[in-house]
Amino acid sequence: MNVLVINCGSSSLKYQLIDMENESVLAKGLAERIGIEGSVVKHQTTGKDKVTIEKPMKDHKDALEIVLNSIAHPEYGAVKDMKEISAVGHRVVHGGEKFTTSVVITDEVKKGIEDCVELAPLHNPANLIGINACQEILPNVPMVAVFDTAFHQTMPKSSYLYGLPYELYEKYGIRRYGFHGTSHKYVSQRAAQMLNKNIEDLKIVTCHLGNGASIAAVENGKCVDTSMGFTPLEGLIMGTRCGDIDPAIVPFLMEKEGLDADALNTLMNKKSGVLGMTGISSDFRDIEDAADNGDEKAITALDAYCKRVKKYIGSYMAEMGGLDVVLFTAGIGENSVAIREQVCKGLEGIGIKIDTEKNKVRGEERIISTEDSKVKVLIVPTNEELMIARETAELVK
Amino acid sequence: MNVLVINCGSSSLKYQLIDMENESVLAKGLAERIGIEGSVVKHQTTGKDKVTIEKPMKDHKDALEIVLNSIAHPEYGAVKDMKEISAVGHRVVHGGEKFTTSVVITDEVKKGIEDCVELAPLHNPANLIGINACQEILPNVPMVAVFDTAFHQTMPKSSYLYGLPYELYEKYGIRRYGFHGTSHKYVSQRAAQMLNKNIEDLKIVTCHLGNGASIAAVENGKCVDTSMGFTPLEGLIMGTRCGDIDPAIVPFLMEKEGLDADALNTLMNKKSGVLGMTGISSDFRDIEDAADNGDEKAITALDAYCKRVKKYIGSYMAEMGGLDVVLFTAGIGENSVAIREQVCKGLEGIGIKIDTEKNKVRGEERIISTEDSKVKVLIVPTNEELMIARETAELVK
Repeated sequence: MNVLVINCGSSSLKYQLIDMENESVLAKGLAERIGIEGSVVKHQTTGKDKVTIEKPMKDHKDALEIVLNSIAHPEYGAVKDMKEISAVGHRVVHGGEKFTTSVVITDEVKKGIEDCVELAPLHNPANLIGINACQEILPNVPMVAVFDTAFHQTMPKSSYLYGLPYELYEKYGIRRYGFHGTSHKYVSQRAAQMLNKNIEDLKIVTCHLGNGASIAAVENGKCVDTSMGFTPLEGLIMGTRCGDIDPAIVPFLMEKEGLDADALNTLMNKKSGVLGMTGISSDFRDIEDAADNGDEKAITALDAYCKRVKKYIGSYMAEMGGLDVVLFTAGIGENSVAIREQVCKGLEGIGIKIDTEKNKVRGEERIISTEDSKVKVLIVPTNEELMIARETAELVK
Repeated sequence: MNVLVINCGSSSLKYQLIDMENESVLAKGLAERIGIEGSVVKHQTTGKDKVTIEKPMKDHKDALEIVLNSIAHPEYGAVKDMKEISAVGHRVVHGGEKFTTSVVITDEVKKGIEDCVELAPLHNPANLIGINACQEILPNVPMVAVFDTAFHQTMPKSSYLYGLPYELYEKYGIRRYGFHGTSHKYVSQRAAQMLNKNIEDLKIVTCHLGNGASIAAVENGKCVDTSMGFTPLEGLIMGTRCGDIDPAIVPFLMEKEGLDADALNTLMNKKSGVLGMTGISSDFRDIEDAADNGDEKAITALDAYCKRVKKYIGSYMAEMGGLDVVLFTAGIGENSVAIREQVCKGLEGIGIKIDTEKNKVRGEERIISTEDSKVKVLIVPTNEELMIARETAELVK
């Protein structure tokens, strides 16, 4: 069974075609600048050359047609016929409280995704456009929606409610939702496999450290808490996002700088994080380089970043009453030797001890804790596309 | 040496006269409704009856005159002559980055306190009014300012900087300051004494749980992190304050509810916390009663409250790389048997084990952990007035 995994942004469409027999990627690519001048599809079938197709695409349907033609192209395609696509799995950012698991897409499900637009005004509309375009071109192929929020829906109310008036939860759904759920789910399951343990017996902290970053507490295979909240702004310091701050800073800045809601969102989401703290870059590799060269702000930003991760690990350890596994995933988590080392440094006293030699690896699945470390520390490369494909295959069977 | 300790609010003045020979309270009281109809001073000399003096007081100077007359009153006073007051210690809320310790008040110090008004617009002006009134009436008595923020000034930059643009720190001083410093300092020192240990050898988490609440990480006697931030809003869920939330909720509410900065501050500071979560009360005793009677929102609010405390304990344990002492202080911390028990429940796996029998006590200094608990758990009643008097006596000697 071949599953096509689709991740639509407002002007982009990322895809992977996965053969579920052996979970191998048959083809993958990206359509960019959809509806804008300079539309392009970059496609690669595994084992063949990368192709770039520049062609006007007025909407996601245009883009998808080119993608599907590429997938089934006689020269650079991966399959002989579009009919070899048995199902499509769509990444959907926000499922609100409605969707606690992945679901086969029906009209009702589309209505549900639309109901969550207010909670993810930039993402859910793009996800819906992708679903509609797919349904037009592949009317008889079953489709599944996989939500970024679903894995976190097992959080108890005491984890997801804020200390705000209860009416705001009832009226606007203001609560912690959490994001990166597909990743947290995938890596926590993979960690259990790597350790040959039953996930039901483990207390895991999953550190998804990418340009966006979140941490989750996974107990007995279920998410009990996570650092991102009502939006993907809360929690860790990120590339351009501030994460946790005193919320009173927001009205203070409204008054002092005369900022409106849009400007505040831009400030906190696009101009903050290590970029804002250093004025150098949102890319952690640049920050690490600057810190190595003695840049004071870069050193402090990395210290603050790692301390925040450390504190979340400790807080979830307390919340779960213990800890068996800490794992690192996503761009920075998989690749930054220095950040993993700095996060774990000083945690020996609470049972977390990494082997600095084993830690010297990038993007590879590996146990990096010492033999005598009470808590196992792992690198687990994430694979959200595979997780989406798995959930899709499972549901359409 | 007798030290008068003064804590001025915008329309109130709390005081204690302390004999530093034996650190005993000679007299204490409160002036209320200063400058408003119905001004009143409630005074009590230790060992004598409480007196209530109702009299118009147009300003803090009027109030202070009545207070000093009460203290030296032939019938209900504590001393024969005002001259027996050797020094005055003033509580000042915000010392910014300027004041890292208590200081003898000079014109320059008053200027410094004024410079911090922007950071504490409600509190510092009232504190200054109290200082000026005292200086007018007691021109030859040395005075000391003791800052709520000073103890936290030892935090490293990686603890006090937010993930915001660095310019906002430079331009407005936006950073974590922390509050309740006098209390955190007092109780952490007292904890070391109770355990017969040198504070330099201890990692302590101090939980100051009152209607306002904050937690601090105290390593080797120095504060390394604390939960309140730029303002006293951040951190724990409190009686009426929300504590930590996704900062993106603030612009969301600006748009949806059309709230301005004042309305947002009021919402987050006065209408949130357990009051907002339950609609019942800001008093935790009412919330505990409601929870005992099965009120779902009260149960959830207490769960969320205790979970937040638990998470901060864990995060500071990770930050310090271990933990020797957790202590509870202030109204709720000293008196709520149930909340202390709920906070510690489930923490056995990380070395924190309380003896539920020993825990059944209110407002008493006591070790409440079991003999085999790795981390000592203590109740330490706070005494900010005594701490202010000690620092004052020390400085004027």
